[in-house]
Amino acid sequence: MPSENRTLKPDEAFHPIRAVGVCLKPAQPQAAGAVRGLVKWLEQRGLRVIADEEAGEVTGHPSQPRSLLAGQVDLVIVLGGDGTLLSVARAVSDRPVPILGVNLGTLGFLTEVTLDELFAALELVLAGKARVEARMRLDVRALRDQGELGRFLALNDAVLTKADLARMIDLETRADGGEVTTYHADGLIVATPTGSTAYSLSAGGPIVLPELEAFLLTPICPHTLTQRPLVLPHSSQIEICVRSRNEVQLTVDGQEGIALREGDVVAVRRSDHPVRLIASPFRSRFEILREKFHWGTR
Amino acid sequence: MPSENRTLKPDEAFHPIRAVGVCLKPAQPQAAGAVRGLVKWLEQRGLRVIADEEAGEVTGHPSQPRSLLAGQVDLVIVLGGDGTLLSVARAVSDRPVPILGVNLGTLGFLTEVTLDELFAALELVLAGKARVEARMRLDVRALRDQGELGRFLALNDAVLTKADLARMIDLETRADGGEVTTYHADGLIVATPTGSTAYSLSAGGPIVLPELEAFLLTPICPHTLTQRPLVLPHSSQIEICVRSRNEVQLTVDGQEGIALREGDVVAVRRSDHPVRLIASPFRSRFEILREKFHWGTR
Amino acid sequence: MPSENRTLKPDEAFHPIRAVGVCLKPAQPQAAGAVRGLVKWLEQRGLRVIADEEAGEVTGHPSQPRSLLAGQVDLVIVLGGDGTLLSVARAVSDRPVPILGVNLGTLGFLTEVTLDELFAALELVLAGKARVEARMRLDVRALRDQGELGRFLALNDAVLTKADLARMIDLETRADGGEVTTYHADGLIVATPTGSTAYSLSAGGPIVLPELEAFLLTPICPHTLTQRPLVLPHSSQIEICVRSRNEVQLTVDGQEGIALREGDVVAVRRSDHPVRLIASPFRSRFEILREKFHWGTR
Amino acid sequence: MPSENRTLKPDEAFHPIRAVGVCLKPAQPQAAGAVRGLVKWLEQRGLRVIADEEAGEVTGHPSQPRSLLAGQVDLVIVLGGDGTLLSVARAVSDRPVPILGVNLGTLGFLTEVTLDELFAALELVLAGKARVEARMRLDVRALRDQGELGRFLALNDAVLTKADLARMIDLETRADGGEVTTYHADGLIVATPTGSTAYSLSAGGPIVLPELEAFLLTPICPHTLTQRPLVLPHSSQIEICVRSRNEVQLTVDGQEGIALREGDVVAVRRSDHPVRLIASPFRSRFEILREKFHWGTR
Repeated sequence: MPSENRTLKPDEAFHPIRAVGVCLKPAQPQAAGAVRGLVKWLEQRGLRVIADEEAGEVTGHPSQPRSLLAGQVDLVIVLGGDGTLLSVARAVSDRPVPILGVNLGTLGFLTEVTLDELFAALELVLAGKARVEARMRLDVRALRDQGELGRFLALNDAVLTKADLARMIDLETRADGGEVTTYHADGLIVATPTGSTAYSLSAGGPIVLPELEAFLLTPICPHTLTQRPLVLPHSSQIEICVRSRNEVQLTVDGQEGIALREGDVVAVRRSDHPVRLIASPFRSRFEILREKFHWGTR
Repeated sequence: MPSENRTLKPDEAFHPIRAVGVCLKPAQPQAAGAVRGLVKWLEQRGLRVIADEEAGEVTGHPSQPRSLLAGQVDLVIVLGGDGTLLSVARAVSDRPVPILGVNLGTLGFLTEVTLDELFAALELVLAGKARVEARMRLDVRALRDQGELGRFLALNDAVLTKADLARMIDLETRADGGEVTTYHADGLIVATPTGSTAYSLSAGGPIVLPELEAFLLTPICPHTLTQRPLVLPHSSQIEICVRSRNEVQLTVDGQEGIALREGDVVAVRRSDHPVRLIASPFRSRFEILREKFHWGTR
Repeated sequence: MPSENRTLKPDEAFHPIRAVGVCLKPAQPQAAGAVRGLVKWLEQRGLRVIADEEAGEVTGHPSQPRSLLAGQVDLVIVLGGDGTLLSVARAVSDRPVPILGVNLGTLGFLTEVTLDELFAALELVLAGKARVEARMRLDVRALRDQGELGRFLALNDAVLTKADLARMIDLETRADGGEVTTYHADGLIVATPTGSTAYSLSAGGPIVLPELEAFLLTPICPHTLTQRPLVLPHSSQIEICVRSRNEVQLTVDGQEGIALREGDVVAVRRSDHPVRLIASPFRSRFEILREKFHWGTR
Repeated sequence: MPSENRTLKPDEAFHPIRAVGVCLKPAQPQAAGAVRGLVKWLEQRGLRVIADEEAGEVTGHPSQPRSLLAGQVDLVIVLGGDGTLLSVARAVSDRPVPILGVNLGTLGFLTEVTLDELFAALELVLAGKARVEARMRLDVRALRDQGELGRFLALNDAVLTKADLARMIDLETRADGGEVTTYHADGLIVATPTGSTAYSLSAGGPIVLPELEAFLLTPICPHTLTQRPLVLPHSSQIEICVRSRNEVQLTVDGQEGIALREGDVVAVRRSDHPVRLIASPFRSRFEILREKFHWGTR
């Protein structure tokens, strides 16, 4: 079992790049010029470009839905914020195509390259000099009476929260069959290391470097003062059973979800399909953390 | 590189057990009866018993210093609290002898067996049915001007704190050569997963299961509100440089230490010599957490 | 302006007690015997008893809705938990009738007397020897386009939370006309000192003794790591304006509420009508805290 | 008893200003020009200027120790950081002379005026248009065997910490004679609202507006996870008894202190002598908080 998220070697990270997918955050007409410039730059290098529907709409370039696009390209470029990248990562699903996240605004945790740096970064990617990280994902299944209500891939987190606003919920949590604890809380976040700088951080969780593979269990407003965030090994089989009559909402990466009721179980394990994320050639992990959190340096 | 702290198989965990070391918390005359009973029980089974100086003192049994004892036995039994076990683990140093921690008072995180359970646990240990965990340790070196001031093995943590009571200190922290951040704080805890339920927890750190191998960086009273506990992969080479004129104290496992000054560096990496700890046959990791933290269950 | 929540003197705390209201937590048929015993005990002392509808249902005693009952009695006894007391306090509204909270289960923060202690406590109350505390309440108004959507009295808290589960909300917060900050968070709790041991505590707030009059602003899962709970003087005029397109829910004392939208304002000030709560004659404030939080003592 | 820290009316805040004290942070030769300019500006307006020893040293102006100076002037101007102001406030002791804090570097919490704003602020002060706040202080007494070891005035905080680096301490804490709890911790901070943005904040305390008068008890690295910061009314008589054999250090405003041992008591009550601090005419309390904590605004 691999111990840590690996940096892939260039030859295992990339197929020869012949076709490139370009994905755009929805409703960004002002990005049309940037997308057109990117398409032109890629085509000048003899690469075939497939736009997603959002990029196609602002540029007129032939487009395909993201889920189809992912199967036909050797590289995906995402223009948008972290939310857009989460959405593309879900569409890419289990295909091992590397993703380059380009932030249209300020720097993100997943979109580590700025628009200014785009072409310099792409030169390195095409030259096989970029670092590609295999980021652990969660395989999340919602179960009822032995049947499967839904199954999701999460790059950041799976979150169970009360749907009824006034009352807390009870979430019996097991790991590898043994009871961990029953959380009495507003909710519970199961996060990857990648997700540790997202919602889990707001709920008081630690920062876990994505080089590590692990699960982070962070309760939201726990009723019991002795509850603390828990970091579990990546081999854990986690099961969370809804133990209160109040309706519970499961939300995956803040974007899709399902309603749960008493007795339903959310089973989480490490997915066999990590996301292949191209790291910024221009700043280290810690530089990004320092920039995002205004940490001082010496 | 091993991904997670392993549960050792019986044949790799134990040599055939012929000699047993018995270590006792200092100044426990009331434990004399228990120690004598233990020695008798072991000798009746044909085992040779070596006492440490504390156990020798209350029983009159022939004794040796812990550091010598560790090289001559196939099993060490510690009677005391977590502090006693930390101290014995240090004396055992790099010898792969398994340790059974028996708590003389309430349950500990490291001394998971109670006095009542001692003989039942020992039967399982001698029958080769006990689970032995390889617990990651820190290899901690204090460096000045390229020279080594001291070198320590830590099972729980290495802690840098201000020695001058009034002022905070600056600790420039690097991982694998790159700057993480400079902590302006009362101090900084570098903890193992085992140490995550000790001092790091008081300083606001998460609980990291010891099945995971990782470093936990938990600042003590950080001046910057955006500092959060950090979990780093076990392959990290951590260096902490004292950047303030105030004197700094390095303390290892709360028991030994050294004074540092501006420019000194504490280098921490994963030790090649984990501690072999015999897990309680009677309660799971989570049962211990629930009992210690009064977590409710369903 | 009074500096602190006062303990009222007996002559200002009580009218001569001639009529007593008895309120019961809904759906507690097993409490019928206790309620009947209480009614009998009161009537034997020449007091007129009026039951609320819940108490009337299990005992057959003549009953009235709580809001009517409150105007006709000189003392209200609540049998239930903290939730029941919050609900009765709302029904009592601006009438200065003292309330004795009796917890049917474990001790509460508001229901400080156990069923076992009920008659001993009542003897002291009737003898004018009980301590009555004036507990600050919030006057909460929800405003839209200069009109008032609703107005509420809160003993614990007024809470604004996202109604849409996936997204955080923006809450521009002003005190006495000046901007405090704009919270980007799951929500914001405005609590009284009485409410500091309720939801605010789960969200990371401090414990504020109810002897103090103040507002506590505790953000729920704030996006910005530098946000901390804020304690404001009781003279503050607080205004919270919804600044995000997502729907926001206002919930008062966890029991009633209203849906808000962008531009709506929640205005909070100290109510002129504190709740008169009879303190336990048998345990101090700190004894209750120690018992509820399992704080050790010497 | 006054309910809240008051903003004083001009006629009660100031004597007619005839003499002004000028105090300087030690070892600031580069500030000589600024101090000379200030002295000249004041003398041109017919005011008598007395320098403290630090200001005298860099300017050659006649000087006096701060404690003598305070009795001879109608206004004190402090050039330095928050630490300098704390030190001057202590020297001013119980004299009701208003203090204007001018920060030589970035903005402080106590030194709210920048060097650029100095003369504009002084114009307003001399015209009687400045706002003067009476900031609550702590009267701190260290007691041994009924005798007094020392007595201190604190504007920020009184802090008890372990002097022995390895071990936590036990601090039995009482309010108005009743036991609050016994803290098992690295230490305990008793802070004023003014001090809530200083050390207490690093230890996890809330922000308490200085308009409020209250005590803040914030434990440092408490061993018990259920300990939370406590806010007590300003009328409280707080007593903290050292209950461990380890040596304990009492530190006041981070600047002076005394060593304590088992059985010693620190008694804290509200001082009758608040500090009169001139508020910045140019920014509100919340603007300062937003600037210091990088809180976003709308």
